Amino acid sequence: MGNSFGQLFRITTWGESHGGGVGVVIDGCPPRLPLTEADIQPDLDRRRPGQSAIVSPRQEADRVRILSGTFEGKTLGTPISMMVANEDARPEAYSEMASKFRPSHADYTYQAKFGIRNWQGGGRTSARETIGRVAAGAVAKKILRAQFGVSVLAYVQQVQRVAAKVDRESVTFKQVESNIVRCPDRVAAGKMVRLIERTRRAGDSVGGMIECVARGVPPGWGEPVFDRLEADLAKAMLSLPASKGFEIGSGFGGALMAGLAHNDAFRMRGGTVRTVTNYSGGIQGGISNGETIYFRVAFKPVATVMREQETVDVSYKNTTLRARGRHDPCVLPRAVPMVEAMAALVLTDHALRQRAQCG
Amino acid sequence: MGNSFGQLFRITTWGESHGGGVGVVIDGCPPRLPLTEADIQPDLDRRRPGQSAIVSPRQEADRVRILSGTFEGKTLGTPISMMVANEDARPEAYSEMASKFRPSHADYTYQAKFGIRNWQGGGRTSARETIGRVAAGAVAKKILRAQFGVSVLAYVQQVQRVAAKVDRESVTFKQVESNIVRCPDRVAAGKMVRLIERTRRAGDSVGGMIECVARGVPPGWGEPVFDRLEADLAKAMLSLPASKGFEIGSGFGGALMAGLAHNDAFRMRGGTVRTVTNYSGGIQGGISNGETIYFRVAFKPVATVMREQETVDVSYKNTTLRARGRHDPCVLPRAVPMVEAMAALVLTDHALRQRAQCG
Amino acid sequence: MGNSFGQLFRITTWGESHGGGVGVVIDGCPPRLPLTEADIQPDLDRRRPGQSAIVSPRQEADRVRILSGTFEGKTLGTPISMMVANEDARPEAYSEMASKFRPSHADYTYQAKFGIRNWQGGGRTSARETIGRVAAGAVAKKILRAQFGVSVLAYVQQVQRVAAKVDRESVTFKQVESNIVRCPDRVAAGKMVRLIERTRRAGDSVGGMIECVARGVPPGWGEPVFDRLEADLAKAMLSLPASKGFEIGSGFGGALMAGLAHNDAFRMRGGTVRTVTNYSGGIQGGISNGETIYFRVAFKPVATVMREQETVDVSYKNTTLRARGRHDPCVLPRAVPMVEAMAALVLTDHALRQRAQCG
Amino acid sequence: MGNSFGQLFRITTWGESHGGGVGVVIDGCPPRLPLTEADIQPDLDRRRPGQSAIVSPRQEADRVRILSGTFEGKTLGTPISMMVANEDARPEAYSEMASKFRPSHADYTYQAKFGIRNWQGGGRTSARETIGRVAAGAVAKKILRAQFGVSVLAYVQQVQRVAAKVDRESVTFKQVESNIVRCPDRVAAGKMVRLIERTRRAGDSVGGMIECVARGVPPGWGEPVFDRLEADLAKAMLSLPASKGFEIGSGFGGALMAGLAHNDAFRMRGGTVRTVTNYSGGIQGGISNGETIYFRVAFKPVATVMREQETVDVSYKNTTLRARGRHDPCVLPRAVPMVEAMAALVLTDHALRQRAQCG
Repeated sequence: MGNSFGQLFRITTWGESHGGGVGVVIDGCPPRLPLTEADIQPDLDRRRPGQSAIVSPRQEADRVRILSGTFEGKTLGTPISMMVANEDARPEAYSEMASKFRPSHADYTYQAKFGIRNWQGGGRTSARETIGRVAAGAVAKKILRAQFGVSVLAYVQQVQRVAAKVDRESVTFKQVESNIVRCPDRVAAGKMVRLIERTRRAGDSVGGMIECVARGVPPGWGEPVFDRLEADLAKAMLSLPASKGFEIGSGFGGALMAGLAHNDAFRMRGGTVRTVTNYSGGIQGGISNGETIYFRVAFKPVATVMREQETVDVSYKNTTLRARGRHDPCVLPRAVPMVEAMAALVLTDHALRQRAQCG
Repeated sequence: MGNSFGQLFRITTWGESHGGGVGVVIDGCPPRLPLTEADIQPDLDRRRPGQSAIVSPRQEADRVRILSGTFEGKTLGTPISMMVANEDARPEAYSEMASKFRPSHADYTYQAKFGIRNWQGGGRTSARETIGRVAAGAVAKKILRAQFGVSVLAYVQQVQRVAAKVDRESVTFKQVESNIVRCPDRVAAGKMVRLIERTRRAGDSVGGMIECVARGVPPGWGEPVFDRLEADLAKAMLSLPASKGFEIGSGFGGALMAGLAHNDAFRMRGGTVRTVTNYSGGIQGGISNGETIYFRVAFKPVATVMREQETVDVSYKNTTLRARGRHDPCVLPRAVPMVEAMAALVLTDHALRQRAQCG
Repeated sequence: MGNSFGQLFRITTWGESHGGGVGVVIDGCPPRLPLTEADIQPDLDRRRPGQSAIVSPRQEADRVRILSGTFEGKTLGTPISMMVANEDARPEAYSEMASKFRPSHADYTYQAKFGIRNWQGGGRTSARETIGRVAAGAVAKKILRAQFGVSVLAYVQQVQRVAAKVDRESVTFKQVESNIVRCPDRVAAGKMVRLIERTRRAGDSVGGMIECVARGVPPGWGEPVFDRLEADLAKAMLSLPASKGFEIGSGFGGALMAGLAHNDAFRMRGGTVRTVTNYSGGIQGGISNGETIYFRVAFKPVATVMREQETVDVSYKNTTLRARGRHDPCVLPRAVPMVEAMAALVLTDHALRQRAQCG
Repeated sequence: MGNSFGQLFRITTWGESHGGGVGVVIDGCPPRLPLTEADIQPDLDRRRPGQSAIVSPRQEADRVRILSGTFEGKTLGTPISMMVANEDARPEAYSEMASKFRPSHADYTYQAKFGIRNWQGGGRTSARETIGRVAAGAVAKKILRAQFGVSVLAYVQQVQRVAAKVDRESVTFKQVESNIVRCPDRVAAGKMVRLIERTRRAGDSVGGMIECVARGVPPGWGEPVFDRLEADLAKAMLSLPASKGFEIGSGFGGALMAGLAHNDAFRMRGGTVRTVTNYSGGIQGGISNGETIYFRVAFKPVATVMREQETVDVSYKNTTLRARGRHDPCVLPRAVPMVEAMAALVLTDHALRQRAQCG
C-alpha cells in the first residue's frame, strides 16, 4: 500500500527499475483538457539520466505513451494511464546488489518489510519510480496553468554550501533551464557545477536544497486541520527519494525570529488583501492567502559513491562493498522536475477540493 | 474536508474554540486494550494553557470524557468518541477579532475560503483544536507501548538560538518533565525560561524547535512510495498550528555533508543488522530500519503579540490592531505533547498497515 | 474501521446503545447553509421508538445537540458534530444477553471478531447507531433541496405480501406521513397495520420492502466504474441493519424481461433528452440520466421475537433463549427515515464529486 | 474519480474499448505469493467474447501481461500492474454510435457528465473495462485459497424464468464449467441454452441471475457499521455493467417470512458455533459467522438488440437506431468470472482489514 497520492486528483504509480516498465494512472482529471504525449515528454526529459555532464551518464530514452483517458487529443474524464517501457537492462551490472545491502539505500529495509526484494537496479526503490510522478505532474501543471492561472517552478537553490540568490517573484523557467545545474543564479550555478565535477572525480557525492514557488494561487486552497496545504506539500516532498527536510516560508530560519518581526502585516493593495512581508510563505492556517507560495526541500548526498564501504550481506555477515560503473554525484538537477510535479499534484488536488466544498 | 488523519488507525477531530466543545473519534483501535480517561488526561494537562508561568495564563480544566468505544475499562474495537466541553467563554474578550483580521493568523484565509468564520477565540483555528489530537495520541502511545514496545518522546530542543544538547538514546520522560519549558538539558532549560520571560515582558513572542524520538520501532514500518514513514511524519507535523519546517535524521544539515561521510554503514551487532551512524534517522527508503527514529519540527514565534500592528478589517480597509489580555509568548512547551501525539498516530497507523499487508 | 461513509460529504458515526451517547461528525459540509437542531430533530422523531402503536414502545426522547460546525445559525465549513445522549439505561433488562448469543443478531459475530462485546442493549449493533446517520442525512437532504433542487422520499412499499401501489412521480411526504406505517397507499396501509398488530400478538415479527425516490437529480451524477451511483446506493442500503436486498429500477423483475422491451427509448421532450419508460431507474452506466431515481430495499423480519429459541451461550454450550419485555414487530416505519438519510448522503456526496471534477 | 476499489487490497482499473489497452494496478498485495500470467489468463478466457456459441462472436485474445510487482515468479509487495492490449479495432463498425445515443446504454450519461465521450465501442463503458477487474480478482482468489482456505464460486442460477437447482455446499467449479452457460444444473442448463439461442434468432436479448458462494470464510470478516461485508459485496456487484439488484442470504424472499421462522438458531457442532439454517447468508450484523456466504445478482437483458429502436442523436433530434453486426444475447456466462472477481476482491480486502485491527 501507499502507491497512491491525492484525494480528488489521484495518482497511482507502479513499476520497478527492471521489468515491463514504469507508469502511472491518474483518476479524477477534468475532462476536455487538451493533452498529448507532447505535454508530458519535456518533463521526463528533464528528469532522465544522461541529459548533461553532471548527472548520471546512463542513457534512457524514457518515451512516454498515453494508453487511455484521452480521445482526439482531449481528456475524457476517465483514468489516464501512462507508461514508459524499461530498456537498458543489464542485470550483470547489479550482481553485487543481489548479495549485499548498500549503505543508506533501501535494500535492507525492503527485505525486512517484505521478506523479498527485486535487487535489480534497486527495483521499486530506483529513481525510475519517479517517472510516473513526473508524468502525472506534467498533467497537473497543465491544469493549473490552463484552468487556474497558477504556475509552479522549482530550481536548485543550494549545493552543499554554495547558495543561490533568487528573486521568487520574478524567476523564470528560462533562467532555470539556462544551465545544467538548474540554478537561476548564474554565478552560483557556475560554482555548483565546479563543485559537482570535483566531487565526481573524488568518487563522492553532494546534496543540497531545491526551492519551489507557486505563483497565482488564489486565497482559499488548503483543507485544515490535517490536510493543510503546507502539510500536504511536506508529505509530497518527503515522499521523494533522498529528501530529508521541508520548510515553508520562513521555515527553520523563521523560528529564530521574534513574533512582531515575523508577522506579515495585512495591507490593501489594488483592492485586494495583501501582506507586506511574506514570511508565511503564502499559506496561513493551512490555507493559501493569495501571496506567492514558496518552500525548500533538503536532499541528502546521493548514497551511491565510488568508494569502498562497510556493510552486511544477505547472509547477515559483515562485508565491504564498492560500487562500480556509472555514478551520479548530484541528484538535484534531475530532482527539480520531481519537486515541481509533486507540488503541482498537491495544488491541483486542493483546487478540486476547494471547488467541491465551496462551489 | 481534511479533518481526518490516518488510514487504519483513523481519527476525526471536531470543534471550535467556542461552542459545545472539542473532540475526536478514533476508528480502528484494536479491541481489548485497557483504556480509561486516566490514560488520556495527563497528556491533556500537558497541553492545556495555564499550567506554568511561561505559557498562557488562561485557565482551562479540559476534562476529557470517553463517550463510546470502551466497556468495563477495555476498548471494544468500535469507534472511541472523546470530548472536552468548552468553558470560560468570554466573547467580549475577542470583540475586536470580529472586525479585524489578525496578522499571521488564519482569520483572513478562513474568511476567504468559506465566506464565513467563527471569530470567537479563533474558532476552528484555535489551539483548542489540538485537544482531540492529543487525546487520540494518548491512545496511540498506549498501543505502541503495550503491543509493540515502542516509546515516543518529544522535547523542546531549541528556543530561538538557545539550543539544548540531548542524547537521543537515553533521554527520559522524567528529564523532559523536570522543568516548565520541557527541555531535558537543564542548563539550556534555564536559559530558555529566562529568554521567554524577557520576551513576555516585551510583549513579543519566540519560536524554536521540538525534537522527537521514537525508540523500539522494528524494521519494516512505512509504505513507499508515497506513504513513506517520514512523509507521513512530515505531514503530521506540518499539520500542527505554527509549524514551519520538518527534518528527519540529518535533515537540512545532512544536505551539507558529502555522501561517503553521510552514509550509515551496516554492521552486525547482537545478531541484528545495525548501522554504525544514524544520519538516516531510523528510516531508509521510507521504511524503518530498527534504529531510533528522530526528527525536528520548527515552530514560528506565536502570532499574537501585545503590540500594535497594521492590518485590514472585514470591510477591507486598512487599520491597526493591538491584542489585549492574556499572552502566550512561547507555544513550545505545550506543543511537546502535540508532537508526540501526531508521531504516535503515524506510527500506530503504520504498525497496523504493516500487519495488514505482511502478516 | 468502517464507521465512515462518503468521500467528500463524509460522515463518521460513533456510539453504543449504552454509554455516553451516540453521534456523528460530518466533514465536508458546504459553508453558509442555514442549520439548527430544528432541521435535524424531525427526522430523529420519525426514527425513534415509541412514536406509534406499531413500533417499539421504548420511550426515547433522542434530543439532538449540534456541538460544532455552525455559527449564528449557519454552517462554517468545519466539521459538524452532533450528539444524542443515552437515557433509559436498564442493564438488568438485558442480563440474559450477557450470557447468550441471540439468534440472527450480531452478538456472536461481534464476539468472534473483536473477542469482546458490549452486551448491553446490543452495544454498537443496536439500532440506536442509526441516529447519527439520520441526523447527518437531515443535513444532506437540506443541502440537496436548497442547493440542487433534489428531493428524497422513502415509504413502506410492502409488508410481507401486502404491497402498495404508489405513483413515484407524484407521491408526497404528506401522504407518507398520513399513517403510522408510512405507506402512501391508504388501503394497503390499513392492511399492513392490521398484519403488524396480529404479528405482535403472536410474539412474532414481519419484514418487507421500502421504496425510495429521488426527484430532480440532474444528469451527470455518479462515478464509474466502481462508484456508480447505484453501487453507492446499494452499499448504503445494505449497510442498514436488517436489510437483505437492493434493486435499482426494474431490478430483479427486469431480469425476467426481454431486452427490446426493457430498453428505455430516448425522446426529446421540452428541449431535454428524456426516456419514454424508466426501467433504468434514473441511472444508466452508473450515472444519473435526469429521470426519477427509484430503488427498493428488502428488510428481513426483526430478529427479536417473544418466543423461545435454540441458541448457544458464551461458554459455547447449547441452550434456549426467550426475549422479554418490549417488542418491535416491524422495523419498517422507523427504517423509512434511515433509507432517506442514506440515499441523501450518497446523492450529496456525488453532487460534490461531480462539481469537483467537472466544474 | 471512482476507478479504484478496496481499502487495503486496492485496485485501480483503466482503459477504454479502443486505445492502447485496458489494465489494472493492484496495491497492497501480500508479498511472496507465487504469481505468473498463468494464474490470470484462465479467468480472462472465461470472460472474453467468442468463447462459445451463445456469447458474442467477437474474437479477442486478451493476453494479459504482468508489468510490475513480481520477481522470479513471486509477488514483491509492490504494485502489480497488468495490461491487455487492445486489438480488433474497427471504428467503422461503430460509426453510428458517434452520432446517436444507444437506448439503455451509457452514451448519453457520459456525454452529460463529461461533455465528451469516446464513442468507439463504448469507450470506458465497454465490457472490456472488466478485464482489469477479472485479472485482479484472479490474484485475490489465489490469496484467499492459499492463505485463508477460502473458495469463491459463481454460476448462472437463472435465465429469464428458467431457474436452476443448486446445492450451495457441494457445487463444484467443474460442474459450473461443464456447459457453455455456466449453470451447474444440467437440465436447467440445457433449457437456458435453447432459450438463449431462440432469443438470438429473434434479435433480442435475455437477463437473469448469477449466484455466488464463498466457502471457508472464518467468523469475523466485515467492518460495521458502513463497511459491512454484505454492503461491500452489494456495492461490488452493483458496480458491474448491467447489474440491477443484489440480495444476500434469504434476500427479497426472506422479507416475506415471519421472524421466528427466519431466525437461524445457533447450535454447537464439532466444537464450533454453527447455525441450523442459513437465511443470514453467512453474515450477521455485517460480519461473517463461519457459514457459507451466498448472494444473488440480477442482470438486466443486454441493451444491444438487433431491432430498430427510437432514440436521440447528438444534435438532440429524435431519430431511430438499429444495431448491426455481432450480437451477444446473454451476458450471463461471461459475467460469472466478473462476479467471482468482485466477490474475491471484497473478501481479500476484509481479510486484510480484520488482520490489521484484530491481529
